[in-house]
Amino acid sequence: MKKLWLVYVLLIGIFLIYVLNYKQQSDSADPWETAGLRGNIEDKYVMVTFQIGIDYWKSVLKGFEDAAEELNVSVEYHGSTQHNANEQMTVLEQTIAKKPAGIAISAVNSKLLTATINKAVEAGIPVVLFDSGAPDSKAYSFLGTDNYNAGTQAAHKMAELTGSKGEVAIITTPDQHNHQERTDGFRDTIRSQYPEMTLVAVKNGRGDQVASREAAEQLLAGYPQLAGIFATESNGGIGVAEAVDAAHGTGPAPQIISFDTDKGTLDLVKEGKIAATMAQGTWNMGYWSLTELFHLHRDLEADPEAYANNKPLPVPDTVDTGIDVVTQVNVDNYYAK
Amino acid sequence: MKKLWLVYVLLIGIFLIYVLNYKQQSDSADPWETAGLRGNIEDKYVMVTFQIGIDYWKSVLKGFEDAAEELNVSVEYHGSTQHNANEQMTVLEQTIAKKPAGIAISAVNSKLLTATINKAVEAGIPVVLFDSGAPDSKAYSFLGTDNYNAGTQAAHKMAELTGSKGEVAIITTPDQHNHQERTDGFRDTIRSQYPEMTLVAVKNGRGDQVASREAAEQLLAGYPQLAGIFATESNGGIGVAEAVDAAHGTGPAPQIISFDTDKGTLDLVKEGKIAATMAQGTWNMGYWSLTELFHLHRDLEADPEAYANNKPLPVPDTVDTGIDVVTQVNVDNYYAK
Repeated sequence: MKKLWLVYVLLIGIFLIYVLNYKQQSDSADPWETAGLRGNIEDKYVMVTFQIGIDYWKSVLKGFEDAAEELNVSVEYHGSTQHNANEQMTVLEQTIAKKPAGIAISAVNSKLLTATINKAVEAGIPVVLFDSGAPDSKAYSFLGTDNYNAGTQAAHKMAELTGSKGEVAIITTPDQHNHQERTDGFRDTIRSQYPEMTLVAVKNGRGDQVASREAAEQLLAGYPQLAGIFATESNGGIGVAEAVDAAHGTGPAPQIISFDTDKGTLDLVKEGKIAATMAQGTWNMGYWSLTELFHLHRDLEADPEAYANNKPLPVPDTVDTGIDVVTQVNVDNYYAK
Repeated sequence: MKKLWLVYVLLIGIFLIYVLNYKQQSDSADPWETAGLRGNIEDKYVMVTFQIGIDYWKSVLKGFEDAAEELNVSVEYHGSTQHNANEQMTVLEQTIAKKPAGIAISAVNSKLLTATINKAVEAGIPVVLFDSGAPDSKAYSFLGTDNYNAGTQAAHKMAELTGSKGEVAIITTPDQHNHQERTDGFRDTIRSQYPEMTLVAVKNGRGDQVASREAAEQLLAGYPQLAGIFATESNGGIGVAEAVDAAHGTGPAPQIISFDTDKGTLDLVKEGKIAATMAQGTWNMGYWSLTELFHLHRDLEADPEAYANNKPLPVPDTVDTGIDVVTQVNVDNYYAK
């Protein structure tokens, strides 16, 4: 009798385990629920840059990795060590040879990279461009800053800092297209919306701290009443801050607005030596590049000819990743994590 | 002895079930794999439009629903029946009262809707705008067509259709901002890039088929050599096609480029009476609106003050959902599914 009891207990136990197991399976098969967006961990998405070691890309890569982790896919990061188109072309060729699930690339030179980008697309690899585009290439999307708008935002902030009056100047890198756009946005906004402000000079800081410092020294000497300086890139901003700091006491210090969020610039914002810096949506560039590539890959895996037949693309044409104004109030949110 | 055998078999059976169950659990806990992006089916995302019944929104809603299904969340669709700001405000107020997980809205009037949109954001509900924006509102993102660029693309297509020479005209709705932008993009491109083309007239078709037909008839009478007409909206395009069709045989027929992809327009493209129509990325508007709201909701659920402290947003500022040129070759891909 004892043994028979044991058999009953065991039978009931097995029955319960069976029921629990069945319930678990039917839960996940609920027709109202879906499994979510989930890729294959074997699928490798590659981010390609130039000057691979600079701080600027860190937050882009973080966004790229965050999206990959959420979507259960893998990433690799490659790039040229120098600001060199031939070197980046070689890196891109090597990447294409590995047939990844997708490539997000910031083109060091839009014209020279176009043919290799097209080669990737023609090989059936989804490609999107971020930060620095190649408008004539066959890449499916561009994600980056609207630089004219960034200049406009900087002008509004400068007006706020100076009480919308006085002389202002720009230190920029005139031969770089994105810096020209920032300059144009700033200039047009001051001219059209702030009648009591005057843009008195646009100087070449050559993207260099020392050259920008010298340019700022000339400005301070030539315009002793200068109310503000807009530096369109971060080396320049640091040089301008040095010049203004050194001239301290000889007159009212002009307000400085700089660009980007490297540690040196953020530290100067924290100290109050740079009034504001324009932060690009770098995390967004990486996050949404990976997300777009994930969708393109899925479509092309289902139908490799999907886009050859002029079908509508499942991703946007252009994504303006936005610009934030960073001041002492919110600077702590912008240090690299 | 027989009973003892039974006990052994049962014990082994239970052990096997235990092992299988354990294996299943450890599979999903593999540190290299993640569960994917998956929301809560209880979370409701609402899409709000105006003139809720028109064809134009169908593909936007399809994109919104496709993304919701993939991410395992729910959607609702509401809107004003008329082109009426007060009615849309009421619909938006009712939507806010239900505290949804997110709202994507196309504002019938950017100024009149701003306060109610801000009310939603202040209540902690993520809001994005699509198709028709409200730039001064606190909404987190705008997703829509770059209408100036659409006009530019239309001009390039017109040049291709006319051999880059001859007289062209526009029929538009001058008091609507997006139509003005399409007109400007077309005009600027013809003037700056096609020296042998002349824009001879810009007529008001009032967004109406009959008025546009009459305007086209005047154009055909006044410019018998007219090489092309660009209609910046679809009712106008159909009216222009009727006028050109009726005048058939009295001279060389001008090439017609229209806008949008309602069935009437696509049928005329298929018949060859409209040479091309400019397709907006409507599915993209819906798909990426839901996707952005999903991310905003997740952040705000984790930390309701996330964006109050000037943190960088996890979504882009502006998404240009793109423009496609639809001709006889690819028209079949653009009928509503």
